[in-house]
This record gives sequence, structure tokens and C-alpha cells, in this order.
Amino acid sequence: MLVVMERGATSEQVQAVVRRIEELGYMARPMAGLQRTAVAILGNQGSVDAARFSDLAGVKALVPVTEPFRQASREWQPENTVVRLPGGVTVGGDEVVVMAGPCAVESERQIVDTARLVRDAGATVLRGGAFKPRSSPYSFQGLGEQALVWLARARQETGLAVVTEVMDTESVELVARYADVLQVGARNMQNFSLLRRVGRAGKPVLLKRGYAATITELLLAAEYILAEGNPQVILCERGVRGFDGATRFVLDLAAIPLVHRLSHLPIVADPSHGTGLRGTVVPMARAAFAAGADGLLIEVHPSPEHALSDGVQTISTGEFAELMRQCRAIAEVVGRRVAEPVEVG
Amino acid sequence: MLVVMERGATSEQVQAVVRRIEELGYMARPMAGLQRTAVAILGNQGSVDAARFSDLAGVKALVPVTEPFRQASREWQPENTVVRLPGGVTVGGDEVVVMAGPCAVESERQIVDTARLVRDAGATVLRGGAFKPRSSPYSFQGLGEQALVWLARARQETGLAVVTEVMDTESVELVARYADVLQVGARNMQNFSLLRRVGRAGKPVLLKRGYAATITELLLAAEYILAEGNPQVILCERGVRGFDGATRFVLDLAAIPLVHRLSHLPIVADPSHGTGLRGTVVPMARAAFAAGADGLLIEVHPSPEHALSDGVQTISTGEFAELMRQCRAIAEVVGRRVAEPVEVG
Amino acid sequence: MLVVMERGATSEQVQAVVRRIEELGYMARPMAGLQRTAVAILGNQGSVDAARFSDLAGVKALVPVTEPFRQASREWQPENTVVRLPGGVTVGGDEVVVMAGPCAVESERQIVDTARLVRDAGATVLRGGAFKPRSSPYSFQGLGEQALVWLARARQETGLAVVTEVMDTESVELVARYADVLQVGARNMQNFSLLRRVGRAGKPVLLKRGYAATITELLLAAEYILAEGNPQVILCERGVRGFDGATRFVLDLAAIPLVHRLSHLPIVADPSHGTGLRGTVVPMARAAFAAGADGLLIEVHPSPEHALSDGVQTISTGEFAELMRQCRAIAEVVGRRVAEPVEVG
Amino acid sequence: MLVVMERGATSEQVQAVVRRIEELGYMARPMAGLQRTAVAILGNQGSVDAARFSDLAGVKALVPVTEPFRQASREWQPENTVVRLPGGVTVGGDEVVVMAGPCAVESERQIVDTARLVRDAGATVLRGGAFKPRSSPYSFQGLGEQALVWLARARQETGLAVVTEVMDTESVELVARYADVLQVGARNMQNFSLLRRVGRAGKPVLLKRGYAATITELLLAAEYILAEGNPQVILCERGVRGFDGATRFVLDLAAIPLVHRLSHLPIVADPSHGTGLRGTVVPMARAAFAAGADGLLIEVHPSPEHALSDGVQTISTGEFAELMRQCRAIAEVVGRRVAEPVEVG
Repeated sequence: MLVVMERGATSEQVQAVVRRIEELGYMARPMAGLQRTAVAILGNQGSVDAARFSDLAGVKALVPVTEPFRQASREWQPENTVVRLPGGVTVGGDEVVVMAGPCAVESERQIVDTARLVRDAGATVLRGGAFKPRSSPYSFQGLGEQALVWLARARQETGLAVVTEVMDTESVELVARYADVLQVGARNMQNFSLLRRVGRAGKPVLLKRGYAATITELLLAAEYILAEGNPQVILCERGVRGFDGATRFVLDLAAIPLVHRLSHLPIVADPSHGTGLRGTVVPMARAAFAAGADGLLIEVHPSPEHALSDGVQTISTGEFAELMRQCRAIAEVVGRRVAEPVEVG
Repeated sequence: MLVVMERGATSEQVQAVVRRIEELGYMARPMAGLQRTAVAILGNQGSVDAARFSDLAGVKALVPVTEPFRQASREWQPENTVVRLPGGVTVGGDEVVVMAGPCAVESERQIVDTARLVRDAGATVLRGGAFKPRSSPYSFQGLGEQALVWLARARQETGLAVVTEVMDTESVELVARYADVLQVGARNMQNFSLLRRVGRAGKPVLLKRGYAATITELLLAAEYILAEGNPQVILCERGVRGFDGATRFVLDLAAIPLVHRLSHLPIVADPSHGTGLRGTVVPMARAAFAAGADGLLIEVHPSPEHALSDGVQTISTGEFAELMRQCRAIAEVVGRRVAEPVEVG
Repeated sequence: MLVVMERGATSEQVQAVVRRIEELGYMARPMAGLQRTAVAILGNQGSVDAARFSDLAGVKALVPVTEPFRQASREWQPENTVVRLPGGVTVGGDEVVVMAGPCAVESERQIVDTARLVRDAGATVLRGGAFKPRSSPYSFQGLGEQALVWLARARQETGLAVVTEVMDTESVELVARYADVLQVGARNMQNFSLLRRVGRAGKPVLLKRGYAATITELLLAAEYILAEGNPQVILCERGVRGFDGATRFVLDLAAIPLVHRLSHLPIVADPSHGTGLRGTVVPMARAAFAAGADGLLIEVHPSPEHALSDGVQTISTGEFAELMRQCRAIAEVVGRRVAEPVEVG
Repeated sequence: MLVVMERGATSEQVQAVVRRIEELGYMARPMAGLQRTAVAILGNQGSVDAARFSDLAGVKALVPVTEPFRQASREWQPENTVVRLPGGVTVGGDEVVVMAGPCAVESERQIVDTARLVRDAGATVLRGGAFKPRSSPYSFQGLGEQALVWLARARQETGLAVVTEVMDTESVELVARYADVLQVGARNMQNFSLLRRVGRAGKPVLLKRGYAATITELLLAAEYILAEGNPQVILCERGVRGFDGATRFVLDLAAIPLVHRLSHLPIVADPSHGTGLRGTVVPMARAAFAAGADGLLIEVHPSPEHALSDGVQTISTGEFAELMRQCRAIAEVVGRRVAEPVEVG
């Protein structure tokens, strides 16, 4: 249960609600959202009678929350969260957004050139790894801050917003200095210290589903960020572990309509990591939009066969341009439109 | 390796190839396809020198087959298999086909009425269970032959082709008397005796992927049917087992482009069983077409909440009509068109 | 709910209960067990008042059954089912039983020699495939009836009971003529026609868990056999599909204590198929006994490297003898003893 | 390939090897182990000719490494790693070690009392959570440093070594001040920054397998720690995600013999988290030892039903004492012995 406070409720009024909850034998947890404050009642069995709070000033309503996540649930906020990126692009509204770029930033030229190519084809956000989580300590781990500088340069040249991964609490500040969206990778979905830290970084967060995480666990991970006061969370389906080695992961597109039913947060799909197989990336990208995804995170490289990492799942800029054409048509079928790049200079 | 014979090769010529293979120390397995005969070489390590067969009449070429399935592979037959159904509908060609109907046949009126409704909305094949495989022996098991009679009646009234499940070897003949397409269910995907029997039934077969079957195992199961001389096999992705109870299965849409790359057989998707959740059926149906599916198998019931089985994953005829509209638009995006119902009488 | 009848209840009394259930608006399903007859009440929400049946003769009690399986549940039968095999071996009682032998019967000599070797090491049941379910139609499929004859010969020579797989309804009678235990393989766990047929064959059945089957589904599959009047069912854990290709399957040993809690049926483990890797078979065989398994199904071959199938997961008779020594000690730790071979002639 | 250096090789000699590798067109990565230094050759296809290094001083041998992990592999170090804990307990040698205690430290009294009880029953390491990773931000998260102080107190009272989880890089130093073994949880198995940090903390590390991690990924995660110069790594199997909600995870005991074949690192099992079900914890603990585990991590609470977290999977001290008796007997069967507690005071 949530005791939802009136918009202008004072902290004294909130404290009175907390005391009342504790008098009833439950635990109270105030949660300050952007749009309203509420106090969660924890430890109760079944529903709590609203009449117990009717004499308290500043109380608007008692809302039942059946899911373990609270601020992430549709019950807490019925209307869609719309995340606004620099340059005017929105995620979670009428627009669907395409985030494209190489797996890893390899050189200034590579990232600036790719940024131009994907922008011209219709992407509005540039992706590119500066810090790369790799299973082996001996694999290429990204170029670090140098890559961040080049990403910022690519933004300057193209007007594209930049999304890039942050791997640990120590580098959140550094990455936030350059990036427009902080990406938390699948392996870190339950790195709770990192979630709390990006919740305080003041930038939108792209949170990838862990590859053995349930939808409930994904939304609880988002709740860690929301609970720190950051409502700008974009979820990302990127494939779960399966038993058939033919694809690297199983892209679970049903997660998209499911998240839309349970939560107000936007969700995008990553068909590149989600299948790990170039021939399936384009069909699954189309499928993601048809399933209602709010956007796409996709690996594009001018010459995939020369990419330093993940070449096998990266499409060429030519394939990408054709895909964009198809995505525009599919977005229209589901009553959306692909966000368009802004003019720069 | 396959020794592919000329189109008019005699059985003596085939026998000569068999003897040569055995002289070389390998096993030989002649495989008569509709379009050509070949002799598979089994037991070899690495490739076999084509020169060893150059003196034999009727030999066209030696073809390497890297996959364990043979006749099901693209290497064996580069061009798509197109399955032709009564009424002129094709599966695997330019058309995409929608197979719709209730989970189970419940009465003559229910199946005939539903058939009319789905035909009017654009379906060209009627699905409906007469024999129902159920986890519990105490659950409703279908109405058997009576249901088959009613399905045939619905076909007569609407011109729709009929697909229905056959559960065991004993009833193949009975079901084949009424149905246009014999469905082999997910639980029976590796019921090899049943696969062999439907391979000799002279009717197209819809083979559903087992819910823990790899793509290779699915194609090997198809190979059992092809090996009996029946080339008319339609595969069906219907969801694999996953760890998140939020959906009943994980609909693995990447299987569609993957099958298209490995095999010439058509593949359709079943979003009803594939998710088991009404709210996700329509988005995943759209996604299947966007991923390149050759068709759709979908549960539609005039009043899903009154269905005898699987109501929770069944959409209404109203939702279905709206879905058909969207599917036509998506088919166009991927260069296909939805097969249209024929006019009856 | 079950209406449990007195031991000597007449069929008229049972019919009276059926009528009463139907008058109450529910469905009735009489279930004749070996030890007692009951009538299941289906279609009810919540419990049914026992007072509604207090005036009917022959009614002993109303028993709630919370699981979807009925006769397989501990609630239906609290005491363990003990399956008795020819030669006096029991499964499910104090003894734990070792079923050993080659994957496939290859020759009379091979099977008779292996039978002697495993008997001398301490096995009491001989396993060996006559009909082999194989993913590919081109793989070795077993020697059929000839192999059955040789298995019977091995039994005659050694006194070992024989377990072998039956793959379809057509061959149940044939296999039942030679075998002491009919094995239903993992791929056929939900081949319901086969389950019903072995339920009427008058022989104990070894039912393997499908490799994506839940414990509930396994027990419901057993229920199909029990519902035909055959109470002699032995379950078998043989590994489920997992995401790590390092082993062929994940042997889910927790299924053993779980089945023991939910059901009265015995359960054995198959570490050979369960891991598919020779080096892990012996440790997992020991682990199965430590987890409380009622027996072991294990592939043993005098020279594994020459086996026609599954050599990679087969242990030698030498390794087997050492394993038996360890298993005897572990059985003792858990308060059991390994069944000992009988002396023959 | 690894170029293994002589024991006393100088850094100049190592540099010469690095240069030679680079001249050959490959990448070189020096790896300083405790026992020997080697230089890994990366980027090669196939093996590299040893003759290319025969003129260089300090080179002992070229060793092929077929697995992606290097220092964690048996090829790199054939003999078992034996981790020595304060008080003389060893992990990975002849002894098997039992690490027991509550899920979370709740009070000084609770942890000291439990420590005494598990020590008296035969445990030699005390487990107990001070920092608890929880799916929900609103769940109990542990008592932090206060709990660490109490753990240290329990060690002082009982002589038990202490293992406790460290959740982020910031708290490694704090936890290392109190704990004898730093535990990295399943959710953090691929938190590479944390792995690197505990690799420099100078304390043994207990690394839990992520619940969707392959064995290769587990060993690569260990490699991150080894690569920082910390050879004292203990692996832990704690269950992987499965499709059957009947248990919380599937405890994959085959991982134990598999790890022993691939690596020299010790591996223990956690049947409490691995099944999440009290009735299966004891059988699976026995099974783990029978499978060859080097130890056990198990949740024990004087009154499990009152535990603040994970009560449902926690056994009582009475059940634990009986389990210890059985484990001693099983250890003997596999040629090991359970480590015995030291006398204190």
C-alpha cells in the first residue's frame, strides 16, 4: 500500500503519516517522487483501511501496489515516463528512437565518421563503448577517457546525443561529464552500489536487463535508481540465456509489451547483443518495433569485419540505412514515428 | 557429403554409387527427394574426393553438407519449399498465411461461426483442436472424431483449409481423412514413430518446435518426415522454456531468420502458445511477421473468456481483425503479402 | 478434493457419490487405485463440505489434494510405493538398486558379457537399448527384436532383471514380452498415448523426466500411467536443458528430495545421460545416492571407446566396480543398502 | 600459448620475450604468478613454434593453453591450489571445510551464539552477511560495519575464520579489515572492477558463480583476481537459473568435477541458495561432498523461522549437527576428511 500525499504536502504532514503507520504496527518508507510524495506501508498482510488516515492533513489517497516494485509500477504512475534527451529527442512518447554506433570507440575518425553515417540514415543517439566489460581480463577493454572525448567530439559534429556504458561507481562522474545517457550493462544490472550512484548522477540511465533476470528483477533494479530521485530510466531488453548455442542469447521480445503493462518506463531493444548473429539483427530490429519497443540500440560499423570487438553481430551502415527505411514504415503501423535527427550548424 | 544424381538417373546407377561408397569404407544412404535423388555418404571424416565417382554414369555432383540434417538443408535445396494448400493458398512463397481459430473445437456452431469470422477478417486456414494433448489426464482432451467432422463442415462453409493436431500413429489415418494439414505438437516433436507415420500420410505437416529443442533438433525432426518422401513440411516456432514465470514460454523469434538461413522449409510462429498471455499475443504476432515469418498460427475465439481451454491466451475476433490490418501493412514492409481468402460458392 | 471410499465399497456406492457430486454442480471422476477407490471432485473452487457426503454409505473421508496430480501424490498415498522386480529386487524400499549396462545392445556376446561383469560388480538390473530414439534419422536406431532376444538371454544367464526402452504404442506388446521394466524415454514423457498404453501393459514402468519438464509435469505424466491402473511407476531424473554447453544436460539432483516430498513414487538418477561426460558420471552417481535416490541407471561398457553410441558418457566395468564400492558406503550413510544380485543356478 | 619463464628469470629476460612475440606479429601479455612468471601470446592462430624462443635466456618452456582462462587452468598449474585460512584450516587439500552461519548478522548475541553452535557441530568457518545484496531497495540490506565488528567478536570467541560478502569497491578495505575471506556474490561475478579490487586486497576470495554464468565465464572471472596477483581464490557453485519454479535455482553439482578437471582452484557448494528450499538443503549438502566438493557454504540459524532473511532455506543447528555426522562419513568415502575446529583458549 502507498499513502499518496497531496502535491503541496509538508514534511510535517509526511511525518504524521509515518507515525500513524508505525502505530498500526507496520513499517513506513517515505518515497519522494518528482511528481508526488508517498509513504509506502511495508510489512502488512492484505490491504490497510483508508479510514485510518482520513483524519490526517495532506493525505490524498491510499493506493494498492501489488508488485514488489513501487515507483516503477503503472499503479504508482499510470502515464508513460517520457525521457528527454539533449537535442529534443524523447524516449517513451510518440517517437521511437534509434541509438546506433560501433561496439567500441576505436579512434576519433572512426567514431565521428560512423556518427555522421548513422545520423544521415536516421539515428538520433550515438552509442559507442569507452569502457568495455569483457569476460576475459586479456580482451580489449576499451580506450577509456580518450574515447569519451572523441564521443563528445562526435556529438559536437553531428548533434547526436551520446549513450555509453559506465562500469563502476568510481567512473560515474567521469562518464557523466561526457555522456548524455549513462548505460548500465547487463552484467551490472544487480550491482546495487552502481545503481544507487547513477541514481544520483543527474543524467538519464539506460538500464540493460541482466541475461538471467526476470522482468520483476529488472523493474526492481530500476527501482534502485528511481528511489534515489532519478526518474529518467530507459530499460533495455538485450537477450536472455538459452539452451541453443545457435544464437548467443534469446531476445525476449515479449518483455516489451509485458513491461509496458507493468510499468510506465520506456523500453528499447538491443538485437545486436540479443542474438549475436549478424543475419538475425535486422529481422529482430524490425520485430522489436513491431512488438512496440520505444527504441533500438544497435551496433553499426562502417566495416564490421574490421571492428575490434563484436564484429560478428555488427551490421554495416548500408544495411542500417535500409533497416531505418523499414523501421519508419513499421513504426507507422503501430501508431508511432521514428525520431528525426536535428540539423546541426 | 551427398552424391547428387542426374534427374533421370536409374536405380541401377544409384546402386552403383552405393557400392562405390561402401568400397571406399563408408556407409551409403540413398535419399529420394521429389526433385532429385542423392546418396548420402556417412561415416566419413572430412570431404570425399569427387574424382572417386567421376567414372559412374548418372552422377551429377558431390555436395558437401555441413549440417547433420540433409534434405532439410539449404545446401541440399537452395530454393524455398512452397507448400500448396487446398483453395490455392501457399506457404513459403510470396504470401504469408494466417491460420486462426479456437484452441479446441467445442461445437459445430462454435467452429463454423469462428471460421466465418476469421475468414472475413482475412485468415485462410482454420485451426482447431480435435485431439488435445494435456499435461493432466483429468483435463479436457478434445472431442475427437466428432470435432473432425465439424472442422470439415467449417471448411465446406468457408473454403478455409483445416489444420489440426494428430497425437499418435493410430489416429494419423483418421485425422488425415478430414484435415488438410497434419499438426505435430511440441511434445511430440521427437516422437519419431509419429514423424515417420505422418511422413507417409500424403498430407502437408505442420511441425511444432519442442519447447526445449534446438534449431538443429527441429530440422532433424523435419528430416524424419522428409526421409519418408514427404517434402511438404511447415515448421512452427511456439516458444521455448525460460526462467521467468511472467510468460508461459519465451517466443524465440530469432529462430525464424535462422531457419531461413539453414533450411528451405517455411516457418510460421504461434504467439498464443508462445507467450500464453493475451496482452502479448498481438504485439508478438506483428513481431513475427516483421521477423520474416511465413505465417501465423493464432488462437481466436468469439468470447475468449468462455473458451474450454487456453482462454487466457486467446484473442477475440475483434482484436484479430485489427491485427490482420496491421499484419498486411507489415508484410508489405518486408516484401510479402498476406494470403487472401477465396470466395466460396 | 477426493472422496475416499471404504475398502469394500460397492460400485453402487461409488455411483451414488458420483451423482451427489454432480448434483452439487461439480464434475466427478472415479479413480480405482490398487488399495482404495476414490472419486475426484473437479471444477470446485476451494474446499467442499464433508457434511454433504455424510449420509452416503461406503464413504470413508474427504481428502484435500492441493497438487494437480492425484494418485501420484503423497496426500493420496502417504507410504512409499515399492516396486518389486523378478528376482526379488525392490525399488522404493530400503534397498537402492543399480541398473547398469551398455547404451545399445550390439551383439549377444556384448550384452551377455556386460551383464556378467556388472552383476559381479553388484548391479541387479540390466539396461540396454533395443530401440534407440535418435535425433537424426540417419543415426544407428538399435537392433530391435533381435536385441530383445539377446537381453532375455542375458537375464537367463545372470538372473538380472531387464529394463529397456519402448518407443511407440505399436511395440509395447513386443517389448513387454521380453523386458521386466518398460522404459519411457525423456522425449516421450508427454507422449500421452504411449503413457496410457504402458499403463495397461502389466509391467513396471521407468518414466524418464523430459529435459524441459517441471516436476509437476513429470508427476502428471506418471498420473497417466497410474490412471490406467498400473501403480508400478519408477521415475528417473536424467538432466534438464541448460545454457552451458560444457555438459550435455544439467542433472537436477534436487528433484530427488523434491519428488520424495510430493510423491510416494520411487525416483532413480541417470548420471550418464544427465551429464554426457565420462569424467562427471562417477561423481554424480555418488551424489545421486547421497541425495537420496532410490537407484541408479548407468551406462557401462567393457570398452567404452568402442561403443556404437554414447561412448563419451559410458564408464568402463573397472570404473563401475569402484563406483559400486563407494555407493555401498554412501547408501549406508543415508540408512539404505544396495540391493545385492541373486545367485543363479 | 604461454612462454613460461625459469623461476629466477629477470625482468630483462621477460622483456626480451615480449619483444620476440611482438616481432612475430602477436600480442604479448606478461603474467606474474606466485610460483612462476609467464608471457601469454595472444592473437595467434594455432600453435607457435617453440624454436622461435630457444635462443632466449630464462625461457623454460612453451605451454599450450586451450582454454580462454590462463592462470586458472590446470595446464598452467597442474597441482591443486590450497588456500590457507587463519587457524590452520585449508581449502583445496585433503580437508573439506564447512562454512556455516546465518544469512544475515542480526545481533552480537545471535552471531556469537550461532558461531559456538556451528563450531561445536564441526564447522571451521563462520559465514554471515553484513552487507546484503537484495533485489528490492526496500528489503533489509544488512547492518554494515556494526555486523563486521560482531563477526570479529564471534571469531575471537570461537576461533572460526570469517567469510562475509563485499558488495562494492568502496567497501573492500573495510570488509578486509574484519573478514578472513572476502566473498563476491553471484550478482557481482562479472563486476570486473570489484574483481580487480579484491585481487589486490591480500585476502582469500570466495567467488560465487553467477546464476547464468558458464563454467568458462566463472573461471575467467577468477582470472581477473589471479591476474592482480592474488592466487587465493575459492570458487562456489550456488545454483543456476532453471525453468521450474519448484526450486529457486538448479544446483549444478556437475560443475564440481568439471572445475576440478579444468582448473586447480578449489570449489565449494552452497545448497542453501542453490535450492532455496529447506527440505532439499541437507540432501544436496551430502550430494555436494559425494560429488567431490572442497567444502560447503550453508545457512544455519538457531531458529530459522525467526531469521530476518532467507529463513525458508535455512536449517536449524540440530539439523546441521546431523548433517555434519553424515558429511564426515561421505568425505571418507571419497578419500577426504572434514576439517576440524581448533581449540580456543
